[in-house]
Amino acid sequence: MDRVVPVSLHRDIVEAAYGRRGFSADECAQAARFCELAARHGIKTHNALKALHLDDHFGSGNARRPGCVPGAAIEKLSSRFSAAEKWNANRKLGQAVAFEAIDACEKMADRHGVGMVSVDFAFHYLWGGGYVMESAKRGYIAYTNCTAALAEVVPFGGKFPTLGTNPHSWGFPTVEAVGFPIVIDWATSTVAMGRVQQLLREGKSLPPDSAVDEQGNPTTDPAKVKALLPFGAHKGYGLSLINELVAALIGGSLPTIRSRPELAAEDEKTTPAFFFQVIHPDALDCGMFAQKRKQAANVRAVIEDVLGHGNQDSGRCILPGEIEHRYAMRCEESGGLIFTDAEVAEFKKIADQVDVAMDTAALKTV
Amino acid sequence: MDRVVPVSLHRDIVEAAYGRRGFSADECAQAARFCELAARHGIKTHNALKALHLDDHFGSGNARRPGCVPGAAIEKLSSRFSAAEKWNANRKLGQAVAFEAIDACEKMADRHGVGMVSVDFAFHYLWGGGYVMESAKRGYIAYTNCTAALAEVVPFGGKFPTLGTNPHSWGFPTVEAVGFPIVIDWATSTVAMGRVQQLLREGKSLPPDSAVDEQGNPTTDPAKVKALLPFGAHKGYGLSLINELVAALIGGSLPTIRSRPELAAEDEKTTPAFFFQVIHPDALDCGMFAQKRKQAANVRAVIEDVLGHGNQDSGRCILPGEIEHRYAMRCEESGGLIFTDAEVAEFKKIADQVDVAMDTAALKTV
Repeated sequence: MDRVVPVSLHRDIVEAAYGRRGFSADECAQAARFCELAARHGIKTHNALKALHLDDHFGSGNARRPGCVPGAAIEKLSSRFSAAEKWNANRKLGQAVAFEAIDACEKMADRHGVGMVSVDFAFHYLWGGGYVMESAKRGYIAYTNCTAALAEVVPFGGKFPTLGTNPHSWGFPTVEAVGFPIVIDWATSTVAMGRVQQLLREGKSLPPDSAVDEQGNPTTDPAKVKALLPFGAHKGYGLSLINELVAALIGGSLPTIRSRPELAAEDEKTTPAFFFQVIHPDALDCGMFAQKRKQAANVRAVIEDVLGHGNQDSGRCILPGEIEHRYAMRCEESGGLIFTDAEVAEFKKIADQVDVAMDTAALKTV
Repeated sequence: MDRVVPVSLHRDIVEAAYGRRGFSADECAQAARFCELAARHGIKTHNALKALHLDDHFGSGNARRPGCVPGAAIEKLSSRFSAAEKWNANRKLGQAVAFEAIDACEKMADRHGVGMVSVDFAFHYLWGGGYVMESAKRGYIAYTNCTAALAEVVPFGGKFPTLGTNPHSWGFPTVEAVGFPIVIDWATSTVAMGRVQQLLREGKSLPPDSAVDEQGNPTTDPAKVKALLPFGAHKGYGLSLINELVAALIGGSLPTIRSRPELAAEDEKTTPAFFFQVIHPDALDCGMFAQKRKQAANVRAVIEDVLGHGNQDSGRCILPGEIEHRYAMRCEESGGLIFTDAEVAEFKKIADQVDVAMDTAALKTV
């Protein structure tokens, strides 16, 4: 059964949980904003439960070398370029950095047509799709990539995991055209390691060509999985490599020691890097659309053509971002954020830890 | 057997062939420059033979509505943005437009850190990898995408082809780090329609999940193929959709009538669109590399980590762009451009048509 958690209760719990860890009021607010965004769009893999779990293991909770430092300040480095900022995040909370970076990109895009922010010494920002989705709702074309925490993916033709699950996220300003932003957002591995563990629990097999065993040979047995494979063979490998190269140009660490300070020499870095870019749609608009259409009408006509010709009849041909949009509509109708009973139980534990009153029995069911 | 065609002879043939079609001296030179670039890197699918074939069928040779117009001039539209140009290509030769667009992006990137050129009323530019490879050799991070001529690809979950094989091409300035630019460049379909025809001729099967039959069901029988599938299921679909959305924002046509004027209403467009972007590597360089490395050394260290740990032992784990680099080295050693006997025979036919002397028996073999 699903239950509806009021937005204000969810915010109180998340802010208190981050506050208890020593994050500033502003960081707590940004963390809560992000977790609400993920929950509202049904992003089960990157909601508050994951965010806090991640902070415990790799972030402020990692006593030896914390990947995330409460209260850290972003240092904006000097840049001779007007449409490109370079930031030292000083391991500040990833969500707070990402929201601010997208805002900065938008300001540059307003002037130059495009703006970029490169971030070194970053921590995990969780769900890249959220930042680009918000920017797309504000009317921009937004993009981000980052290096994922751990090297879990084997390069095409190789045997040993040396790449992160390195995600790419693109958001397009299609609210006027189709009612919601198209958000193309995924990891470059075929499946996530969390999915492998889930299939193991359920006694199921992996899809073919998604993972390798100890010897580097493909396996569909989740019990034998040692590392993941990129999706789409050499093409997904190339996409994963892009994140490593962009991060390497920014200042990122070697992939196999990233987030693994115990494996790294003292003078090596173990932090990921972020890259953000926003484009103003007017910067692309050549103003010569067929049938005197305006830009949004042309986008709508193209999308209708793609989904037309019977493609939508089965109900399986949809737009990227459509599932998330439907989840948000369901939340909107329910008057809160929809979670499973298992998730609600986890929230209750956190609420108790941080002394926020949460009466799970009183939550509306849907 | 392979034969070596001298660069000057290749140029004479290509320039004469384009000249005979009415292209200007500058266009002929750009066409030859492009064909040489493709040939030098072993790009068999997009060399001079393909370029001329394409021009015959969709370009200046298409009498009813030529997709490409010899001598057309690019019209640079007004833009209020300093890092974004908007061009009406007026169906000018795609290769000439692409070279000029990348140059313009580089100039903007020098000032702003990033520069973009959006092109409406475009013609096919053939091999996007070539333009970004050249830019990467000059030290930039370059990217381009375009809408492919024909809608041959079925969106994920659909049955009818409404997407182009829409390619993406990224080039990275890794010459100092690894000796050649990393070029990530591919179509978003699993295979090309040309490959389906080749497999049909050879009596072979397609890879699974690469094409559908008349009813929209997956097939591995090349004789039954009606349309292609995106690579990597919903992920490749998303990547293909990006090109359609970017083109739609620029001013591109509906995908199913693109390059098919016979299907289009008079006031609809049937032209593709191009998008180019160049980033200056200094715009990403935060200057805080581990072990006091410089940017190129950090890129090299990351690449060595990715390919290390035994991954290179099998010889199958390579960098994108490495095969093209090796081909170029082979050409360099041979003192010309290496073609198969079958390709040489095709060149001889063209040479005869345009009155360029070509003694195929005198060509060096390798």
